[in-house]
Amino acid sequence: MSEFRQNPISKHWVLIAPNRAKRPEDYKTRSVMEGLPELDHKCVFCPGNEAQNTELYRFPYGKNWEVRIIPNKFAALEHTALYRHKGFYVSHSGDGDHEVIVTRKHNEPVALQSIATVELSLETFIERINLLTGHPELAYVQIFHNHGREAGASLVHPHYQLIATPIVPPHVHDEIMGCYHYYQHNHTCIYCDIIKEELEVKDRVVYESEHFVVLSAYASRKPFETWILPKKHGARFEDISKEELRHLSFVLKVMLGQLYTKLSDPPLNFYIHTMPLKKQQSDHRHSVQEEKAYHWHLVIFPRLTIWAGFEYATGIPINPIPPEITAQFLRGDNP
Amino acid sequence: MSEFRQNPISKHWVLIAPNRAKRPEDYKTRSVMEGLPELDHKCVFCPGNEAQNTELYRFPYGKNWEVRIIPNKFAALEHTALYRHKGFYVSHSGDGDHEVIVTRKHNEPVALQSIATVELSLETFIERINLLTGHPELAYVQIFHNHGREAGASLVHPHYQLIATPIVPPHVHDEIMGCYHYYQHNHTCIYCDIIKEELEVKDRVVYESEHFVVLSAYASRKPFETWILPKKHGARFEDISKEELRHLSFVLKVMLGQLYTKLSDPPLNFYIHTMPLKKQQSDHRHSVQEEKAYHWHLVIFPRLTIWAGFEYATGIPINPIPPEITAQFLRGDNP
Repeated sequence: MSEFRQNPISKHWVLIAPNRAKRPEDYKTRSVMEGLPELDHKCVFCPGNEAQNTELYRFPYGKNWEVRIIPNKFAALEHTALYRHKGFYVSHSGDGDHEVIVTRKHNEPVALQSIATVELSLETFIERINLLTGHPELAYVQIFHNHGREAGASLVHPHYQLIATPIVPPHVHDEIMGCYHYYQHNHTCIYCDIIKEELEVKDRVVYESEHFVVLSAYASRKPFETWILPKKHGARFEDISKEELRHLSFVLKVMLGQLYTKLSDPPLNFYIHTMPLKKQQSDHRHSVQEEKAYHWHLVIFPRLTIWAGFEYATGIPINPIPPEITAQFLRGDNP
Repeated sequence: MSEFRQNPISKHWVLIAPNRAKRPEDYKTRSVMEGLPELDHKCVFCPGNEAQNTELYRFPYGKNWEVRIIPNKFAALEHTALYRHKGFYVSHSGDGDHEVIVTRKHNEPVALQSIATVELSLETFIERINLLTGHPELAYVQIFHNHGREAGASLVHPHYQLIATPIVPPHVHDEIMGCYHYYQHNHTCIYCDIIKEELEVKDRVVYESEHFVVLSAYASRKPFETWILPKKHGARFEDISKEELRHLSFVLKVMLGQLYTKLSDPPLNFYIHTMPLKKQQSDHRHSVQEEKAYHWHLVIFPRLTIWAGFEYATGIPINPIPPEITAQFLRGDNP
């Protein structure tokens, strides 16, 4: 039986409509990385081809780098003069930053990377966020990963992208407002309360460690939408401790590994939601309370179904498999 | 140079980020209908296989039907007892209707159908909306079409879908609120003002007839997002005149034909946005003014790019081709 469910933070609706013909294992795909070499001389991201792109950063220094940052060749945003269209329509020039964070091995998806490599990437994200903080034209830094063609990855070599925007993205804004209103009403954080509720109910818990809880999201927009929530309340990803960062690297790798193994390397995105950059945010009247109310997190978003006309017309994603089933499948419980 | 643009009705943002490597003709695909027979004996929608599904309606009566309506076999919604979850999370049982409206010929996409067949389908939509009006559990009827696998069509035989929902879809709600606030402020309809503005500027006008204006949408979420706007202000698609219906059939067929020819039958969705069902709407305190402010329309939504992690993280679609370029391409102007 189908059910409309509301995301308690953003208030967005989804329709969970179980298609009886399909079980979780029916979503198995085929790895895009299979048979690829560790080094591809034709790949612009591979060691040996560093001269083909401008470099913003590498670590460690020298030939044996593990992580490099380069500007996106087809940048969605650029540093240009700011303007705002004042006619009938509202627009804003596409100022910002668009960077690519590349890991070394051509054929090693994040799911198969060492924890040290994942940790190095996460540390790099924090460095870049800190570097962009205070830039007067920037409001938000969105870090995300595309894996597989169906998830929008145009190059197979594993990489992350960072897009810094002059506006706070609507989804982040909706979440911050949701947290703020919940906080005003309940004097608690909604994400903290979700963790409490989910650990009690257990149905959607995929994994729990000292510092993190992993859930199949209650109002999953697509099958296997997975939330990694830090137990320690905090608004900003960039403010987490070294220890949390190490744990997060482990948890992220474990969860991507579960998906890789159980669904044969599905196409997926993942992304971090954190507070807008500090500078921008202080202009805002709610800033202190919003900062208190928000709770950063990481979302893994596999791409195993295609949205059709209904989704784009209504804004209500139809998800054919309940998160309670995917959580059980990912935990490996006997049915 | 890239530009953030805001949809003036819903206030949703998009990022128009022209990828200099691509021109409109580079989005050409390959027809999914090529080489298909007019009748496929294995297709459950084809004449001769009527007994394989329950029938809700056919026209004309008898063997030579042109349009049939059947319930969706994998219904996203069903008639069940209503309930609302009262715990930590909010949910609503998936009550409603899910119907499939089938046209006769297996290999004839809407773009190639006769105007009479398109008109018959549109008339059928109106009949179904009128039939569902007054149902106490239903709030909205969403009619849409999926064409091509990348647009979510699982069966190739041309068909429309109708999903009646117990909640007003968020995108429709956002538009109605946008219209309402604009009306409160300006004492005019925002869609009427868009038509006025666009006919003056001309850049994004694809086609104009006595009763309709066709635009490449200012804040297009994907390349070739096309709006068909009726010139006559009215909140409800189901209230249009016979003459408008005939004109709409022609305009829809012409526009789908343009896309079919110039992009080699691209995968696409299209859908109608109209007011929520009359019964439901009268519960609402703004109802009379909303009805005055809203303006029904039809959106064609080709599926030639894939949203990646950025889109799902932020809610800001990146569209690599400005609507001014697609409008010119569809009009056939010399560059």
